[in-house]
Amino acid sequence: MSIRIGISGYGNLSKGVEAAIKNSNDLELVAVFTRRDPKSVEIRTAGVPVIAESEIESYKDKIDVLVLGGGSATDLPVQTPKYASLFNVVDSFDTHARIPEHFENVDKAAKAANKVGIISVGWDPGMFSMLRMVSTAVLPNGDNYTFWGRGVSQGHSDAIRRIDGVKDARQYTVPVEKSVESVRNGGNPKFTTRQMHTRECFVVAEEGADKARIEKEIKEMPNYFVDYDTTVTFVSEEELKKNHAGLPHGGFVIRSGKTGLELENNHIIEYRLTLDSNPEFTGSVLAAYARAAYRLSTEGSFGAKTVFDIAPAYLSELSGAELRHRLL
Amino acid sequence: MSIRIGISGYGNLSKGVEAAIKNSNDLELVAVFTRRDPKSVEIRTAGVPVIAESEIESYKDKIDVLVLGGGSATDLPVQTPKYASLFNVVDSFDTHARIPEHFENVDKAAKAANKVGIISVGWDPGMFSMLRMVSTAVLPNGDNYTFWGRGVSQGHSDAIRRIDGVKDARQYTVPVEKSVESVRNGGNPKFTTRQMHTRECFVVAEEGADKARIEKEIKEMPNYFVDYDTTVTFVSEEELKKNHAGLPHGGFVIRSGKTGLELENNHIIEYRLTLDSNPEFTGSVLAAYARAAYRLSTEGSFGAKTVFDIAPAYLSELSGAELRHRLL
Repeated sequence: MSIRIGISGYGNLSKGVEAAIKNSNDLELVAVFTRRDPKSVEIRTAGVPVIAESEIESYKDKIDVLVLGGGSATDLPVQTPKYASLFNVVDSFDTHARIPEHFENVDKAAKAANKVGIISVGWDPGMFSMLRMVSTAVLPNGDNYTFWGRGVSQGHSDAIRRIDGVKDARQYTVPVEKSVESVRNGGNPKFTTRQMHTRECFVVAEEGADKARIEKEIKEMPNYFVDYDTTVTFVSEEELKKNHAGLPHGGFVIRSGKTGLELENNHIIEYRLTLDSNPEFTGSVLAAYARAAYRLSTEGSFGAKTVFDIAPAYLSELSGAELRHRLL
Repeated sequence: MSIRIGISGYGNLSKGVEAAIKNSNDLELVAVFTRRDPKSVEIRTAGVPVIAESEIESYKDKIDVLVLGGGSATDLPVQTPKYASLFNVVDSFDTHARIPEHFENVDKAAKAANKVGIISVGWDPGMFSMLRMVSTAVLPNGDNYTFWGRGVSQGHSDAIRRIDGVKDARQYTVPVEKSVESVRNGGNPKFTTRQMHTRECFVVAEEGADKARIEKEIKEMPNYFVDYDTTVTFVSEEELKKNHAGLPHGGFVIRSGKTGLELENNHIIEYRLTLDSNPEFTGSVLAAYARAAYRLSTEGSFGAKTVFDIAPAYLSELSGAELRHRLL
């Protein structure tokens, strides 16, 4: 019997979850919930209904896990605790500073309703967090380094688009190769923000806009760009569409740590992702954790959880014996 | 209060566990058990007794977890089930074909005694297995590739030493860089054994030995060398000691998998280890899983387990809240 999945929202991430469900053997998409007019939303799985989010409670006994495709700024802080009182839920909450509060809210709601709520799932937070955590436990004497990219940062692209005279933009976060190499060589260096990443901006200006002013505004933008070496390249709309349409991303987590009675030996653990499609990979991680949420709920292990709290075997559709035989 | 650890055996791996315990805050070495004359074994942690293995039962209530430093060929198939009836245990059993049988034996003994037995811990099996498993669950449509090296294979070094006329030897397993690159480029290629690894042998011959015959015997040795491109370099004893004294190892697990409704996007997950000291890293993994074994036992989660069955948080000395704050 398949695990019945609902998806809340239908943006890029939700479409990634939809594709992951289609490509699994044991997950079944039952409904997509939307705040838009359901008639205006056409999904890509034949025969699955699009339902108004206001009707979601009527699906209480028809789905096993609700995957939340919403954003961390305003959607998830409200939706995840709210829906955790109706469903087992999985979200990709990534506002780091608010994770403790979010965890508590989801934990309270989920425990009161005998549900499982898995938060902050994806690749960072998510897979990268798991790797940082496990590597730190194995090599407690060392440093973690997280590099993102080369990939599209949607937040930074949006920030550029809000500048007056900008029609469209795409921002790539790029790790500084020299710094990556020095970590791989075991030096345990300390870096400034500028030493770890550069930012490459491809910008379509409105006709007649002052490009020098736009470039200056980008490069001096606090938080987003001022602490980085930033390059701005103006391109035509056609060029942006042709060369920058995808949403590739990735990056790597490196743990450099020492062992030995005198800490005389060094070890490098590196975990690297090279992703053609950020939302489809993130959606695939969410789908695997939806499977885990369902299984944990059948065992009565209720409440909020993160990737740290879930044994790997729960993510797989294979049995313990099969996993030991094939992958150990 | 510290978790009280005993170590059975005192070879390279046990010394690695000893160093990992010294470098942790919450693990305490209580005793080392040996089949040799305890007086002949000098360990590197001051004040810790070396006890005859025949006396191990008297430590039943004095240690929380026994880490087994023995070998997979003859020690662990007997020791792990036997000691799992007295202690929580952790081993590094790595004879792949016998894992199902070993798991069953340990499971039976551990459950009967209300103990936890974690088997096949280290980096492969161990960390590599975890990465293969999690990556396969996240990207079910794809292939796994495991490359080992560049590093010293002790089994292959021993095999060379058994050849007539060989005084000493060191064998390095080396991944074929061209094949690694083709996997990283997302081609999902199929490889023969020869295409994945080469073998480099450094050999000290006895005075007057027939080097041509030794080289031929190495290169034609079934299972160990015949299916590989093998190079043999004769060196002096001094040269071997000077340039090949360490036990570096490492390697990488790569999952190349596709997502999207038409499987149109490819993703590469790569996990890479670069280890100065194979036994010290393996010992560090065993120490982290010893922590997990103790915690699982306090929760009453008894029986045999592998890395697949243990939530990452159990490996860390940090609390859930600290982990979420620092590493999520």
